[in-house]
Amino acid sequence: MKVWQGKRFSVLVEDGIEIAESPGAAAIVAVDGADRVVLVRQVRPAAGGELLELPAGLIDEDEVPLVTAQRELREETGLRGGTWRELASFWTSPGFVRHRLTLFAAEDLEEGAPEPDEHEQLDVVRWPLDEVEARLDEIDDAKTLAGLLLYLRMRGA
Amino acid sequence: MKVWQGKRFSVLVEDGIEIAESPGAAAIVAVDGADRVVLVRQVRPAAGGELLELPAGLIDEDEVPLVTAQRELREETGLRGGTWRELASFWTSPGFVRHRLTLFAAEDLEEGAPEPDEHEQLDVVRWPLDEVEARLDEIDDAKTLAGLLLYLRMRGA
Repeated sequence: MKVWQGKRFSVLVEDGIEIAESPGAAAIVAVDGADRVVLVRQVRPAAGGELLELPAGLIDEDEVPLVTAQRELREETGLRGGTWRELASFWTSPGFVRHRLTLFAAEDLEEGAPEPDEHEQLDVVRWPLDEVEARLDEIDDAKTLAGLLLYLRMRGA
Repeated sequence: MKVWQGKRFSVLVEDGIEIAESPGAAAIVAVDGADRVVLVRQVRPAAGGELLELPAGLIDEDEVPLVTAQRELREETGLRGGTWRELASFWTSPGFVRHRLTLFAAEDLEEGAPEPDEHEQLDVVRWPLDEVEARLDEIDDAKTLAGLLLYLRMRGA
């Protein structure tokens, strides 16, 4: 039974259990031609301030996560093309949130102009890959921490 | 403005932004005397089935996360005592959820009887630490993936 409907998520009660439901999301560990990881810094009202995160976005209706990921990376950073692979997928807060996130790694990307959504204000930040390990304590977001750790492990770094 | 209030979380609208708010949680990478990581398997309605996760629980009012973590580990697995350190803390879904999770590592633990909550049904599973790396693709939960990766990195494994 749906007990509340918002623009970004809804609240269901199933067998007495309360669940916040969203369409799910995709996020990208994107590495540019200079071996830098591309992050975005933006205000996140739910987190009470600015947060440094992987590029990411909500899945549009009937979209497969890879298409979401490629669209969001292009919009937020301008990066396009390249070689993509899936790193992992997981529930972000399975105690009360029905929200599944799929993580991709993208390499050999081409530079281009960002195409930001008019509602989005974000700064693109690039970290040399060999600095990521030492800067993990600057990360305050679950998907970003998991994605960077998985990517470093995949690269054998 | 609060627009919905449940037992486990509430929904706020702040400056037109919808936020699901919970009290936050603590989770534990617990390693027993035989160098096995202790996980719990339970039905998670939000995830549509069973999930294998780190022991974890919601923070009770005014509780510091370490106290939550020690209480939940004892209730869910019986493990107590030991040496504790904080591994990380992060937002789990900062796009629309105000829910912060603090991750701990606990070692040199003593065995004891679990004290399960009457509403909780869970199985305790133990993975030898040297198998964790190869079994990460069995993990479908953000905090568990991040916690195991951080712990392996800390141990130099």
